[in-house]
Parts: sequence; C-alpha cells; structure tokens
Amino acid sequence: MILSKKVSGIAASDGIGIAKAYLLVDPDLSFKKQTISDDAAEIKRLHASFDNSIEELKKIKQNAKASLGEDEVAVFDAHIAMLSDPDMIKQIEDEIKTDKVNAEQALVDVTTNFAETLAAMTDNKYMQERAADVKDIAKRALSHLLGKQLPNLASINSPVIVVAHEITPSDTSQMNKKYIKGMITDMGGRTSHSAIMSRTLEIPAVVGSEKATTEIANGDQLILDGLNGVAIVNPSQDEVSEYEQKATEFATKKAEWAKLVDAPSISKDGKQFEIAANIGTPADVDDALKAGADAVGLFRTEFLYMDSDSLPTEDQQFESYKKVAESMNGKPVVIRTMDIGGDKPLPYLPLPEEMNPFLGYRAIRISLDRQNIFRTQLRALIRASKFGQLRIMFPMIATLDEFRKAKQVFMEEKQKLQQDAPGIGDDIKLGIMIEIPAAAIFADQFAKEVDFFSIGTNDLIQYSFAADRGNDAVSYLYQPLNPALLRLIKHVIDSAHAEGKIAAMCGEMAGDQRALPLLLGMGLDEYSMSSSSILRSRSQMRGLTTGECSTIVDEVLAKCQTADEVESLVNKRLTGVAQ
Amino acid sequence: MILSKKVSGIAASDGIGIAKAYLLVDPDLSFKKQTISDDAAEIKRLHASFDNSIEELKKIKQNAKASLGEDEVAVFDAHIAMLSDPDMIKQIEDEIKTDKVNAEQALVDVTTNFAETLAAMTDNKYMQERAADVKDIAKRALSHLLGKQLPNLASINSPVIVVAHEITPSDTSQMNKKYIKGMITDMGGRTSHSAIMSRTLEIPAVVGSEKATTEIANGDQLILDGLNGVAIVNPSQDEVSEYEQKATEFATKKAEWAKLVDAPSISKDGKQFEIAANIGTPADVDDALKAGADAVGLFRTEFLYMDSDSLPTEDQQFESYKKVAESMNGKPVVIRTMDIGGDKPLPYLPLPEEMNPFLGYRAIRISLDRQNIFRTQLRALIRASKFGQLRIMFPMIATLDEFRKAKQVFMEEKQKLQQDAPGIGDDIKLGIMIEIPAAAIFADQFAKEVDFFSIGTNDLIQYSFAADRGNDAVSYLYQPLNPALLRLIKHVIDSAHAEGKIAAMCGEMAGDQRALPLLLGMGLDEYSMSSSSILRSRSQMRGLTTGECSTIVDEVLAKCQTADEVESLVNKRLTGVAQ
Repeated sequence: MILSKKVSGIAASDGIGIAKAYLLVDPDLSFKKQTISDDAAEIKRLHASFDNSIEELKKIKQNAKASLGEDEVAVFDAHIAMLSDPDMIKQIEDEIKTDKVNAEQALVDVTTNFAETLAAMTDNKYMQERAADVKDIAKRALSHLLGKQLPNLASINSPVIVVAHEITPSDTSQMNKKYIKGMITDMGGRTSHSAIMSRTLEIPAVVGSEKATTEIANGDQLILDGLNGVAIVNPSQDEVSEYEQKATEFATKKAEWAKLVDAPSISKDGKQFEIAANIGTPADVDDALKAGADAVGLFRTEFLYMDSDSLPTEDQQFESYKKVAESMNGKPVVIRTMDIGGDKPLPYLPLPEEMNPFLGYRAIRISLDRQNIFRTQLRALIRASKFGQLRIMFPMIATLDEFRKAKQVFMEEKQKLQQDAPGIGDDIKLGIMIEIPAAAIFADQFAKEVDFFSIGTNDLIQYSFAADRGNDAVSYLYQPLNPALLRLIKHVIDSAHAEGKIAAMCGEMAGDQRALPLLLGMGLDEYSMSSSSILRSRSQMRGLTTGECSTIVDEVLAKCQTADEVESLVNKRLTGVAQ
Repeated sequence: MILSKKVSGIAASDGIGIAKAYLLVDPDLSFKKQTISDDAAEIKRLHASFDNSIEELKKIKQNAKASLGEDEVAVFDAHIAMLSDPDMIKQIEDEIKTDKVNAEQALVDVTTNFAETLAAMTDNKYMQERAADVKDIAKRALSHLLGKQLPNLASINSPVIVVAHEITPSDTSQMNKKYIKGMITDMGGRTSHSAIMSRTLEIPAVVGSEKATTEIANGDQLILDGLNGVAIVNPSQDEVSEYEQKATEFATKKAEWAKLVDAPSISKDGKQFEIAANIGTPADVDDALKAGADAVGLFRTEFLYMDSDSLPTEDQQFESYKKVAESMNGKPVVIRTMDIGGDKPLPYLPLPEEMNPFLGYRAIRISLDRQNIFRTQLRALIRASKFGQLRIMFPMIATLDEFRKAKQVFMEEKQKLQQDAPGIGDDIKLGIMIEIPAAAIFADQFAKEVDFFSIGTNDLIQYSFAADRGNDAVSYLYQPLNPALLRLIKHVIDSAHAEGKIAAMCGEMAGDQRALPLLLGMGLDEYSMSSSSILRSRSQMRGLTTGECSTIVDEVLAKCQTADEVESLVNKRLTGVAQ
C-alpha cells in the first residue's frame, strides 16, 4: 500500500480544494553551444520556434480574455509583435550564418544584447521596461527550440491547484479564478502577497511550506486544506472522501455566513461593532458591499500614484474619492493619504535609494516634506467629502509634531476651499494609523488630538519586533498573539476610549479568527479586513460574548508570556465560551 | 567690512578648533577625448603622471607611517606596485599609438577594462577587491595628467579642519589625529560614523550641515564650535579672540574632568553609579582605563568576525575575551554575542541579500539558527570567565522564547565544559540588549528571567520611530528626548529594579549630556559610552542630585508631549538645580 504524503505550511486562506497539481516552475532551459553546418536547417528551426511561440501566445490570450481585463491581455499583444519583428529575426539568422552556431545560441546572444541595450537606457523608463519583455519572448522561443513546455497560468482551462515557489502580482493577473482550486507555495507568511491575494480571491491557500515545489510533481493529485495548512499528495480514496465531506461542511458554513450579509455586526450579547472592508481601488467597493461591509475602513490611495505616468491631478483624485463615497451610500469611508516610499518607486517621482526602505522616507514623511503633493490630495478629499461620510487618515505617524503639522496643512486647505464653499470639509474626521511603536506607546496623548485611530498591525508588528514581514528568515517573529503586542494594542484601544474616540484596526490581524475574541474583549470598535473575511468574522462575532472575551483578555495579559501560551489559553477558554 | 559667514549643523563632538579648512572633495577630473599626432609626447606625459603618482604615494606613506598602523600603510605599497606594472603601462602606450588618443583617454579606457575584468571575478573575492585599487591609481594618475591635486588625508602635516560631504571609515584610517583640529560634514546625524568616530578620537565635530562643502573653500580660515554645532568661515579677529577664550575655558574644564579619573561615579547626594566604556577590540581597553571607566559596558565582538577570512576559532575568541577580562582587573566586562547581519557581509558566511537588513536576519537570530557558530562563541566566553568578571549579553532579543533558547544553549555548553572544569562559568551573569520595542514593552516579564538589561538606544530609537538612523531623510526622527521613548526607558529601568536586576544603557544616549539628568532621575544603574565621554559624564553626574532629577522626570512625563518640550523643560529646571 502506498501511503499518501503530506506537505505542511502556514494556513493562509480558508477552504479545501481537490485537483491536480499545476507546477508553476520553469523547466530546465540549459543547452550547449554547437557548431552547425546546415544553416538553412537551423534557420528553419528558429522560424518554427517563433511561429510556435506566436501561436501559443494567441491561445493564451484567447483563454485569458474571458477572465482577465484588457490591460492584462495587452502584454500578450506586445510579445506577439516583438516575435514578429523582422529586424531581430534577421540578426539571429545572421549570427547563425556567420558564426555557424545552433539556433539556441544565436537566439540567446542576440536577445541578450537587445535586452542589455534596452536596460541601459536609463533616461527612458519605458524602453528599460521592455528589456523584461525581450527576455520573456526569448525564453518562450527557447522552450520551443528545446521541446520544453513553459508553465503558463493564463493557459489553464481545467481545475488545478497551483504549486509555486512564490506567487507574484504578475502571476496573479494571469489567473482565471474559476480554475484555481487552491495554491501552495514554498515561501511567504500570512502577510505575503500570495497569502493576501489568495484571501482576496477566496482561493484556499497554504504558504511557507518550504518544499512544495520539490515534493509535489506536475499532475499529482492533491488535496489542499487551507483551514489547517496542509496538502495531501496523491491521497487515498478514503482521504478524498473525508476531505470532500469537509469541503461540503465548509461550503455549508459559507452558505450560512452568506445569510448574514444584511445582519448587524453584533456580539452574542448584542453589543454593536463595525466590520469594514480594506479596498485598493473604487472598483473594490462592489465586493465590499456584496460582502455586507458596514464601512470602508481603509481605502488605500496608492493606486492613483502607481497606475499613472505623472502625479494624479486634484480632479482625477476627486473623481475616485467621490465615487467611493457615493457608492458607500452614507456609510463611513476611511481614506488613507498616500503611503508611497522607497520600496514602491514611481518613475515620475524619483526617491533616494535606501538601505532600509521600510525605515525610510515614505508616507506622511514625504507628504510633510513635499507639501504640494499632499495639499493636492487633501483638496481633492475635502471636495469629495460632500458626497459621503469621509474620514482622512495619515499613515506612518511617529510623533505628535507630525500629526499637528499634517492637521495644520489640512486646516489651511480647508479654509481656502471654504472661501468658495462655506462649511465644506467641516464634517471630516481626522485620524492616524497606529503602526509605529512610538505612536502606540503615546496613544493616550494622541487620543486628545485625533478623532480616531486605526491600528495597522502589519507594520506595527514588523516594527515592534524589528522583523521585515517580507523576509522569510525572520517570519517567525510575525506574532499577532504575542502578549507584548496585545498589551500595546490594548493600550491604544483604552487610550481612544478614555477620550471618547474610535479605535479601529485595518491590518491582517483584524480578520484573524484567532485574534477576534481578544480584540472584541478589548472593545475594538471597528474591524477592517479583506471583503472575503467579513461574513466569516461577522458570524464568529455573533457567537462571542464581550464580557467573557474581556475576562479572557485579562487572564491572557496576566498569565501568558509567549504567543503560543496565548493561543492555547484562548482555545481552552473558548471551548467553554459559546462560539 | 566683510562679515564672517556661519554654517550650522548638529553638534556631534565637543570642543573648539581653529584652523584652515581642508576640503575633502575630489576635484573635477573630466576631460575630452582628443586625437593626437605626437605619440611620443603623449607617452612621456603618461610616464610622468605615473612617476609623479609613485612619488606622491611614497610621501604620503612616509607621513602616514608615523601615525597609522602597518595595515593602513600597506595599501600604499599595493598602489605603488600597481603603478609600476609594466603590463598595464604597455597596454596604455599601445592604445595611444594605435588609436592616436590623448593619454587621459587611453589611461581611462585601459584601467576601466582592467577594473571590470577584476570585478567580474565573482569567485575570487580578493581579485574583485583589487578593482577598487585600480580605480584609485587611475584617478591619481589622471589628476597628475590634468594638473589637479587630489585631497589626501594621510598627506596632511599641519593643523586643519576637515570639511567633507561625509567621512568614511577608510578616511578615518588615514587621519593623523595630531593635525585634525575639527571636522564638519554635509551629511550624518549624531549616530553616524563621522559623529561616533569624532567622539572616539576626541576631535570637535559638526555633522549634517547640508552645505559645508559648498559654503567653505579649501584654505578658508575656520572656527569649528563642536559645543554648539556651528562653523564660522573667515572669522573676524574679534571672533577668533572670543573663541580662543572659549577654547581655553573648555580646555580648563577638560583638565578639571581629568582629575576625576580615579573618582567614584556618584551623584551630588552620594548615590553610587557605574560609568562604563563601549569598546570594539581588546586594544580599546587602554583608552577605557585611562578615562577611568568603572567597567566595560559593551564589548562588541564583531571585529573577530569582520577582520578575518574565516569564522574565528574558539581559541582565537578565548584569547580576546581573556585579554579584556584580565586587563580590566576584576571590573565587570559585558560581552555582547555576535551582532552580524545583512548590512555587514562576511565573505566566508554568505547571508541572503535583504531588502531591509535592519529588520532582517542578524545577531541572535543567526546565533539561534546556526548554533555551531553560537556554541563556539559561548564556549570561548565560558572559558574566559575564569579571568575576570564576565557578563554575557544577547543582542536583538524580541521575545522571551528567544532568550530562553539562547540561555538553554548557554547552559548546555556550560555543562559540557564543567565535566572537565567543575564550576566554570557559574558566576557569569546573562543579560539582554533592550533594543527592540517588543522587548522593552515586555521588560517586566523579561526581568524575571535575565540578570541584567542593557538598553541599546541607537536601535531602540530606530525601531520605535521606524526610522533608519543612517538615512538623512528621516534623521529628524532620531529623538532621544521624545517623551514616548522616555516612558519606554523608564518602564525598562523600573522593571529591572522591581526584580532586583541591573539596568544599564550602552547606546549613544548614555553619553548625551541632555539625557543624563533624566536617566539619573530614572535610576539607571550603568552608563556605558565612548571612553572619551566618561570623564565629562562623571563630572556632570557629580553635580546632579538624584531626588531633584527624579522630580524633573515626573514633571517631564506628566507634562511634555514633544522632544522639544522635554529639552526646554529640563534646561529650565536644571538652571534651578545645582549643576
């Protein structure tokens, strides 16, 4: 009897998937330089590889069109055009003829040269970026020369579980969600791109397995258990039955959750809270409303700056903010001012290269320094406030000085706009992200001056433990349940309440099932998360009693010294508390 | 009447210097490619430039020998040998003859080629590093071809004030302290290399002036006031007299301080504290003892790993630790286990490249992961503990789990060694650096398990405010007097005392005159700093009363919201308190 094999990792997105493995790993494309005698035969091979590449890209594009947007498909057209470029083909042919080398060698020599020339155009960002395209098409043609198949997410047209070292944003853009039944990666933690994206797309996922791509072969039958962070490779029939049963149970649960879309976000004892959505673009409001969000708790405005060739104008911004405000139909919308920095370069806004961009010149630090950018954004926000219930939130505030300066700039712009529109912006609440330890520690003083806090746990954990959350070597320090962190969060919430202000949270932790009982016990007012987590969280909340949760918090803070101790104590107590 | 000009910056090292400016800025070495007809003349120019370079290097070497070590002088020999390499000269001559270009062009072409070839030898670190030497000699020869003078710190043989964009460790190694009366830089903050080094060498310094190199010309007369962070360019005779007076007063003060070398580190009301030295190598113990250090509060062990081609053996380490322990003659020596990380690469210990090395895989994180390295160091430390009063300190501890694991490894190695040497290591105290916010917040729990804390303020400030202390764009967030930080530090000290443990500090803040009254008021037990700050701090301490300082701390924490408010309140109160 062959035993099935298990690969464990971090549970990153709920659900169970059963399908064949799709290995997202490049095949070995190495080859030897060879001297050839028959030029014509070699040139024929070259043309065939280009023709096949074009055919393949057309098919991929056809499949992709159904599920992806126009922008995502445009890249395939660019590649097809490049493969049809007579100048490049001519150069490769010439090298075959002159140097008497095999097509593989000539292809790589010429395209490498092309790519290097493009990459060297440092004053032309557009041409520089084309270097990556040249490498892409060269890889595809080479795979055809060598008779190897490149993996291609966009070509997937039957159910699969994607097995990858890591999943990049460009991979994501090529996925047809319909066929992706699960994902498992070698790298990453709960806040990696792969993990966040899988939750947004509601695809069961396991990350940080360390060995998925080496232990799992293409085509292996897989069960992916995103609830417990494990994949079963080539499962027995019994295992398949067991997990089909579990999948059904999970689907039933989800159907129950779906009934809560219009239900209030209340605890079992009837206390009212707010479960809100984190969104990245105005288009995301749809998902938020479908998931029954009580508010938008975090509208990231970076897309305005990233998806553009120049700084977004006041009117462009105004339209976006207005759209979100209107779509939310009177429900609160918290908009964060730009959080751009050294790790997210903008071609039109050169920023210094930094050794530690997460500790660098970014977010409010740039806004206070380059006030023209900040003032434009604030004016757009103030104007948009007429169309809904807008709140403005400043990111990366470390000191009271910074908040006071930011508020001062806001007041100045408001005053200017009020000359033409009396009273405009007077309803706007001003808050800050609590994501820097110094601000969390000083929350009692901040609370006297701000209207609300939103705790950004991803960064707060990163700075509190001095551990880059994108760095796998220190991912063990991403500890949302660490008692030192819980103490800090409780201080922030207590400080807000002491001054009658709102305490919200918009990091990953707000949607973490293990954390919710503790946050509820601390009295956190608003929980902002991926839209896909809202209904599950609402269901969980409706089963919890605030008094009992508060007792658990007290016990945790009095007794626990490590994150593991917290987790097991909460689990133990909750089996007593109704859930 | 011509008014003198002032350039302001950050006061980085005490004292007043008056001398001519020495501009440490490369001259413009640009030139045009020219077609020449007279090969022979051009080759003659080439030879002259090489000969002059060699002569110049010999002189520099001669001057440097007097003040610098053998290692620092060896680099000049290497450059002289390279300038005498017939193969390189031949290639340049050939290009002059064949291409009919001027010597400048041929020199740059050939040496660039050489340097690139060397740099490409990725499997030979030694040859790769020689690329920098080739560039250095090419620059020197080019300066002679163009009739320009390169700045050279090692050639300085009369009193100067160095004016630089930034001062690097390699610059420092070439300075003859005797002639350097002061330094002023464009870049850097109080914890930059330039600043720390100037305090170690006791050279008055102003850093972060932003414009010293553009406002000051080579040879300008300068007054450098390191007490107030200002330079006066081409001062009037009155100003010179005034500052000569101030310099005399400062010298008198220093002479007073010098009398305290054997005096106890006590407050005015007779409370006993410890003022200790931060050291980097065993050789630094001399300076510490001369300055009257009560202890070594931080012995950084990185030099063992950095100045080596392979991991240091147990015996090599043992010798270093033993030497320091013995030299301190029974006084306590706190040794920090290795604090290596992504920003300090070791050729023989490949570490992953990291996007944010300050938030990465480093210090105790590496020690716990690669335990063979850690165990070797601990064994050497335990063996050396026989020769003095050793304390071991773990850097970058974020969670109690980490400390417990590190202690466990220590206990295992101690037990092994005790089989042959009963009782060895039983006297060693085990402590941690408090430099990560989570550990500071949780100090009350840590205090139950550790023997002592040492607050590493440089990193603690960096992480608490999420601001890289090497990044000028965010240096405004390096705020040792920020009330949020003071609150955190007080919590650490109170937590230690509640469990009867020692609270020490080994960051820059421990030697900061503005901070001392507050730290004394909080009851900090040990103040570890650059040896050059010890006597001044002892003098200051002997003028302060703990009760009054404690009252100031209470008032500061109750009333102040910003670092500026703290500074002015302390100043105001201290003019009342005897000082």
